[in-house]
Amino acid sequence: MQPSTYHLLALFVSPEQQALRFPLTMLLIFGTAKLFANVCEAFGQPGLVGEIIAGVILGPSVLNWVQANDVLTALAQLGVMFLLFRVGLEVKASDLMRVGRTAFLVAVAGVLLPFLVGWACMQAMGASHIEAIFVGAALVATSVGITAQVLAAKGLLHQVASQIILAAAVIDDVLGLLVLALVSSMAEGKVKIGALATTAAVAGGFTLLVAKYGTSTLQHVMPKVERKLTVAERQFHLALFLLFGLSLLATYVGVAAIVGAFLAGMALSETVEQRVHDLTHGIGELLVPFFLAGIGLHLDLSVFTNRHTLTMTAIILVAAILSKFAGCALGSWRLGPTDMLRVGVGMIPRGEVGMVVAQIGMSLGVVDKPVYAAVVFMAVGTTLIAPPLLNYAYRSCVREAPEIIPASTS
Amino acid sequence: MQPSTYHLLALFVSPEQQALRFPLTMLLIFGTAKLFANVCEAFGQPGLVGEIIAGVILGPSVLNWVQANDVLTALAQLGVMFLLFRVGLEVKASDLMRVGRTAFLVAVAGVLLPFLVGWACMQAMGASHIEAIFVGAALVATSVGITAQVLAAKGLLHQVASQIILAAAVIDDVLGLLVLALVSSMAEGKVKIGALATTAAVAGGFTLLVAKYGTSTLQHVMPKVERKLTVAERQFHLALFLLFGLSLLATYVGVAAIVGAFLAGMALSETVEQRVHDLTHGIGELLVPFFLAGIGLHLDLSVFTNRHTLTMTAIILVAAILSKFAGCALGSWRLGPTDMLRVGVGMIPRGEVGMVVAQIGMSLGVVDKPVYAAVVFMAVGTTLIAPPLLNYAYRSCVREAPEIIPASTS
Repeated sequence: MQPSTYHLLALFVSPEQQALRFPLTMLLIFGTAKLFANVCEAFGQPGLVGEIIAGVILGPSVLNWVQANDVLTALAQLGVMFLLFRVGLEVKASDLMRVGRTAFLVAVAGVLLPFLVGWACMQAMGASHIEAIFVGAALVATSVGITAQVLAAKGLLHQVASQIILAAAVIDDVLGLLVLALVSSMAEGKVKIGALATTAAVAGGFTLLVAKYGTSTLQHVMPKVERKLTVAERQFHLALFLLFGLSLLATYVGVAAIVGAFLAGMALSETVEQRVHDLTHGIGELLVPFFLAGIGLHLDLSVFTNRHTLTMTAIILVAAILSKFAGCALGSWRLGPTDMLRVGVGMIPRGEVGMVVAQIGMSLGVVDKPVYAAVVFMAVGTTLIAPPLLNYAYRSCVREAPEIIPASTS
Repeated sequence: MQPSTYHLLALFVSPEQQALRFPLTMLLIFGTAKLFANVCEAFGQPGLVGEIIAGVILGPSVLNWVQANDVLTALAQLGVMFLLFRVGLEVKASDLMRVGRTAFLVAVAGVLLPFLVGWACMQAMGASHIEAIFVGAALVATSVGITAQVLAAKGLLHQVASQIILAAAVIDDVLGLLVLALVSSMAEGKVKIGALATTAAVAGGFTLLVAKYGTSTLQHVMPKVERKLTVAERQFHLALFLLFGLSLLATYVGVAAIVGAFLAGMALSETVEQRVHDLTHGIGELLVPFFLAGIGLHLDLSVFTNRHTLTMTAIILVAAILSKFAGCALGSWRLGPTDMLRVGVGMIPRGEVGMVVAQIGMSLGVVDKPVYAAVVFMAVGTTLIAPPLLNYAYRSCVREAPEIIPASTS
């Protein structure tokens, strides 16, 4: 790995170190992720678990060969945006609206219970009131990317439970925004009810409007715009334009960019040709591993040196899994035990959302470093545990062909 | 564009400013590039000229809304890698080897003449000897991305002239590496012939070996490896692995990453299924606009305030165009006037390679800021002028269907 002369020469030829480091980073992350995906599948586990583990191994916890930086963060963010966009393309808005009521119950119960349990656990362990509240808030928001990827890969997006998970995750994101705004203003000592209500109205209104009228608007507008354009692949360009546009709007109103990406995909699902699915799929294949490995990169096991931190982490992890599972299963009790299990399990992953909450808490000086580390471990842990549980919960389903059907295979 | 409250709220929810800026940058660059591509096509010009102009307009020269940064540079680099990879997939190595001798003549004449003319012009304008040599070196290397994109989009990659352009551009890159190494060591006052010879042997050897034996090796190895893997789209993953691997190796031996990307595509061209073409195409559609707009972003017209700089820039631009055209046309004289015109015109774009040379010259303290600005203008200018000239040079060709045939269109 050190052909010193050529290494130096190459560095000299293109002045930025970047020139050499960039293809190396791409190769390392992509190659390792896909290698471990294959290993996991050989053991009957979902491949994406291997891709997250690849990040853990390349990151500070084990080899420390790759550190998170602006470029990797951007690729990961693009990756999860395309993941949700791709899932949105497979989902009809009308189907999601139909399960709206149950999804709302799932989302609300899946926010309240983890918040209360997280808060109670931290109080019991002697944390300050405000720190306990932050940990509660960090347990709130489901990260839908992992579950969506598992369901899409197995062709299970059209199951009722899957649609409830997707709809609940979107509502969950709006609720999570409110919880975070509430908690942050509490930490700063001034809770403005009026501002919170406006936030709720704008974020909720945006989401609901796009979900409800997006599809019909695009069915009307897309063909007209397309007729005015001449370049090849114009439908795909319009789709990407909508993806970035709605992601940006979502960020403006306060919800996650990936919610905008999902809404964009869903709004397009009844308009675009198979070609758009194929091209989107290609981008996802390149970028999603960077999102998955990126989750693992955040983990730093070296923090867990003392017993207290280990115990606290274990408690937070178990609290996160059980409270979300119980809350979401409870919210979907009308569907019977099979679907309760599926919904409960599918909502478990917290991913990067919980990390962001804990980060804010740390920047406000109310969350300690060990607590932050515990929350990060919880986020990665819930992400790793959900896919095998989903495998189990959906075991009775006939395994259909994958949603995203190859356009041409020989 | 300034919904201040929500803007601030969104910034607060995710602590990095990045959260908001990233989808905005993606939307701005991608949207503007595709808008201008459509405008250019409406005027009968190649769309990619519009995408470069979009970068000029968004960049420091006009609106200054977007500045080059690590993330955009990485996306641009990935973009041009996928561009060359995609072109490589359409080209058979055996076809390229067949035109190798002519391509070699084209490359050598197309390196010598621009170097001499650039050096002579600068000397005539009173520049120092070493500065003149650096400008000469900056005029040497053809940037094949632009020409390749035009030819691929029009389905002209299988014309003899096109294949000579591709082969000559690869050889050109190896020669450019040598010129740069020579010139840089001259600036530092110590020319090591032995080291240069080694560089030449390693870079040339790598390129030739991969071009000659890549295809047959992969035809043998790919099916065996594929049989051992289980995940979906494994052929595509292997292709990407090879792309990053050969790009990295290319960087190690001193040639550009995009040469590695092109060689990877070419080595795979007789092995992979149409599915790999489609998925690669999707990634290219997303990323190539960032490469094209990125060229425009580098331009800063505000430097051109005085008459001397303007005159010098004009001279360098004209010298760059005419010397490359003459050299390459001369190198392909055996093919007759039509193909001489095509080859000469197709080799004109310099793109970012010239900028890198001038940057190194500046960092060594032998190239002035105005001269650097002139070289950047030359790089962008040659890139903008080549596509319409290519349109003209290939006008007599039957316009076949595009190389990259949509898998399913209605």
